[in-house]
Amino acid sequence: MEITHIEHIGIAVKNLEQAIKYYEEVLGLKCYSIEEIRTQKTRTAFFMVGQTKIELLESTEPYGPIGRFIEAKGEGIHHIAFAVKNLPEALKEASEKGITLIDEEPKLGAEGLKIAFLHPKSTRGVLTELCEHPENENK
Amino acid sequence: MEITHIEHIGIAVKNLEQAIKYYEEVLGLKCYSIEEIRTQKTRTAFFMVGQTKIELLESTEPYGPIGRFIEAKGEGIHHIAFAVKNLPEALKEASEKGITLIDEEPKLGAEGLKIAFLHPKSTRGVLTELCEHPENENK
Repeated sequence: MEITHIEHIGIAVKNLEQAIKYYEEVLGLKCYSIEEIRTQKTRTAFFMVGQTKIELLESTEPYGPIGRFIEAKGEGIHHIAFAVKNLPEALKEASEKGITLIDEEPKLGAEGLKIAFLHPKSTRGVLTELCEHPENENK
Repeated sequence: MEITHIEHIGIAVKNLEQAIKYYEEVLGLKCYSIEEIRTQKTRTAFFMVGQTKIELLESTEPYGPIGRFIEAKGEGIHHIAFAVKNLPEALKEASEKGITLIDEEPKLGAEGLKIAFLHPKSTRGVLTELCEHPENENK
């Protein structure tokens, strides 16, 4: 697969407003958007850091994926997302090389990206997201 | 503080060679350097992904920091490192804003960077490294 850059780092937080305050007031970053992703049961705050985003993820339900992650491991880095040039091909290649796909097909993620997750049991413990900007299609 | 970009993502792995194989053969990234950092009891493999590095970290001793991390949490993302323009000033500012510094003063890290860690208990669960390229000095 062809990875161009790290699209974002997902970080699980208990309280989005308090976490935004830390990232803005201590680290000096600027939250440019807050989005609720109902299918993922999360609220997400976005910061741009060079060419990569920080995505803070707060669970909107205790038993959503972020709620369960925090329950098991506490707040912290949740996943890394790589931007790829052709997501369906990247998924096919990963699967052929023995990687377990959480999403067999691309699905719609935050900010209109096409995304799919690889299972951390097959990626050395790192929950890994692959994503493609829609404008890449048919290029 | 002024963060310019994410300098690297540190990922704890049990076996550096096997992990390099995954990052090269599945993700298509290229390991450009392997470095042993004796003070940290780690061996590190570097990959460039856009403007950010992936640093794979293998413990050279069971009770080094990476060995203890894997013992407690398993393989996975260990820390995030932000490039800042002035590390001593960034540390002073973070401390004044209530952040617990693991390193009160900059120390020498991999690839000749000046680095310092912030304690995850004060950074919402994320072990956070700040680093400055030596060529930034006196600018």
